[in-house]
Amino acid sequence: MTVDGFEGPEKLLEIWFQFDNKSTSNPSGLRVIEYDTWARVLSLVKCDILSVKRNDFFDAYLLSESSMFVYPHKLTLKTCGTTTLLKCLARLLEIAAKSPGISGNIEYVFYSRKQFMFPDRQIYPHTNWSDEVSYLEKYFSGGSAYTVGKTNGDHWFCFVWEEPLNPLPQLPSGQIKVDCTLEVLMSGLDEEWASKMFYKKANSSPSDNEFSGLLKRAFPDSDIDEFHFDPCGYSCNGLKDEYYFTIHVTPEPKCSYASFETNMAFDADMYAKIVRDMVHLFKPSNFTVTLFSERANCDSSDNNETHKYLWTGPSKSFCGFFRQDKIIYEFENYDLLFAHYECSEKLRKKRQALQGQNYLNIKDFKIKKI
Amino acid sequence: MTVDGFEGPEKLLEIWFQFDNKSTSNPSGLRVIEYDTWARVLSLVKCDILSVKRNDFFDAYLLSESSMFVYPHKLTLKTCGTTTLLKCLARLLEIAAKSPGISGNIEYVFYSRKQFMFPDRQIYPHTNWSDEVSYLEKYFSGGSAYTVGKTNGDHWFCFVWEEPLNPLPQLPSGQIKVDCTLEVLMSGLDEEWASKMFYKKANSSPSDNEFSGLLKRAFPDSDIDEFHFDPCGYSCNGLKDEYYFTIHVTPEPKCSYASFETNMAFDADMYAKIVRDMVHLFKPSNFTVTLFSERANCDSSDNNETHKYLWTGPSKSFCGFFRQDKIIYEFENYDLLFAHYECSEKLRKKRQALQGQNYLNIKDFKIKKI
Repeated sequence: MTVDGFEGPEKLLEIWFQFDNKSTSNPSGLRVIEYDTWARVLSLVKCDILSVKRNDFFDAYLLSESSMFVYPHKLTLKTCGTTTLLKCLARLLEIAAKSPGISGNIEYVFYSRKQFMFPDRQIYPHTNWSDEVSYLEKYFSGGSAYTVGKTNGDHWFCFVWEEPLNPLPQLPSGQIKVDCTLEVLMSGLDEEWASKMFYKKANSSPSDNEFSGLLKRAFPDSDIDEFHFDPCGYSCNGLKDEYYFTIHVTPEPKCSYASFETNMAFDADMYAKIVRDMVHLFKPSNFTVTLFSERANCDSSDNNETHKYLWTGPSKSFCGFFRQDKIIYEFENYDLLFAHYECSEKLRKKRQALQGQNYLNIKDFKIKKI
Repeated sequence: MTVDGFEGPEKLLEIWFQFDNKSTSNPSGLRVIEYDTWARVLSLVKCDILSVKRNDFFDAYLLSESSMFVYPHKLTLKTCGTTTLLKCLARLLEIAAKSPGISGNIEYVFYSRKQFMFPDRQIYPHTNWSDEVSYLEKYFSGGSAYTVGKTNGDHWFCFVWEEPLNPLPQLPSGQIKVDCTLEVLMSGLDEEWASKMFYKKANSSPSDNEFSGLLKRAFPDSDIDEFHFDPCGYSCNGLKDEYYFTIHVTPEPKCSYASFETNMAFDADMYAKIVRDMVHLFKPSNFTVTLFSERANCDSSDNNETHKYLWTGPSKSFCGFFRQDKIIYEFENYDLLFAHYECSEKLRKKRQALQGQNYLNIKDFKIKKI
């Protein structure tokens, strides 16, 4: 990562393929695609694989610019900097269609990103939202594109394509496997803390790193894959059964940014706790929360619990931040929450006064799936 | 209105002024502003006053391009075509500040419009959304601008400015005077019906007009002011106590459009009925519903009723239309619903088959405030 103005905010693509695990004895789907094949696909995106961890449910790739998660039936690809994420689409759809159990039909596509800090440095088709949408429409005709949030302030872009005849999943009561994706996107991190945590120190081993320790305590049951960039920057993937979390940090004061993402489903209180913990940890000057949550046709109160945060959750004032926007989109089978917060004057002053002190107690930082 | 490509979709501005009716024995506020003064203000917008009706609560102006409603403490100005609505802002704020009881401080500003059909014909600052926002920000710094709906499909623009320290109104329980504004914006009207209703016939008097008859039956208690344009087009204002409704129709097949707007507060069922009636009446190929609804700090179930439509109201399929978008914005003191619908293939076919028959029974079209 370069020191001068790195674009931390990621491009995020998730594609769900129709997957018939009855048609084959091999339920691996996309997971049969080999490391070298992925490496060639990712070269189109202009990023490299740093490492990979696998469990019974999915493969988690740590990339030179963010992360990739490969499930039998779906793929999540998140890349930052000036990567050309959408450039891999043709090849990706081609290799996916050849995977066992994958019919080539697509169920859902989600593409999203925050507004860029340095839009002029981006490479086609990421030069602007309109170019990205035209590019996506070539592959996913009929998709819906949105500018979410203030056109004259912080905003986030989102493209959604849903198989039109895809019925809501019928789940038995008590079944909580409703698909959710939470992102917390934080800008203007606390300089001193970020410098302490995410700049490489001479003669230190990764195990000395304070942030790594924090993270292990926060996600005690997860298998964590980390990378400390030289001279600065940080990425990690966490695996816990079928769930992932991923954190990426750009600590440079000019363009500081950190993101947290997970597909774990929580209840409303736990969602609020995660957002609070992330904000306490990174101490940003502003942050955005996005939550995609599937609406399942079931009476499960767990489903309602997840949805409860989306509908009533993020309060107007929160940990010294004020909500600038709360917007809810109802898609065909998913609901989307977008909330943007900015630091209150009072919190800003308190932070200035406490500069240099470890003023927030984050030792109880612990996140557990419901 | 010209026959070739008239821009029906309106620009809509609403400004709430701080109004202290205790400071003066004259509670007229903006209503003291004289007809000739308004005529000069509206000449900056490039439109004329056709007529005016007054009641105890407000003045309703019928304009050559849409309508204006003047209350003691607030003004609603709606203009279509290539009018330059925002050009009147400087003068408007100046004359408002001189009105009795008006402090010059502003409480709320709402500016909105649908995407233009013919954007290239618009005059600065209406040349594009970004120009409009910059122009608004000169007067209302810190306002929030949004593109609501699909950036690659039907959308609507909205700018909201709220006095930051304005507390939610504290209303006694049972008090239902919560501010609401509903718009139903319809495009692609039924050609034959629109031609029959909204083109002037030789030797006919306004009282012969079938639409006028319908409207009188629909709003039996309202004082209605109508104008039939030559050769075609229609505008009306309705007054009922402190509430208005207004309808504007561009019937030309190339660019047909009709809008209904009201500040009456209804319960959820009545909102659904109004939208249904409008859609049955104008038979559009697509329509947008917008509803701004104030959140009052009261236990009034009426308040919840109005809000109920906003949160749970407009269903996925409705009168043969499919919902393409449902988006909810939570502002400081207001919630906003945006819903967009398109005609189903089945309804389109049914309409074609019935072409020329009066296939929808609208004789029970009757709207009453709760």
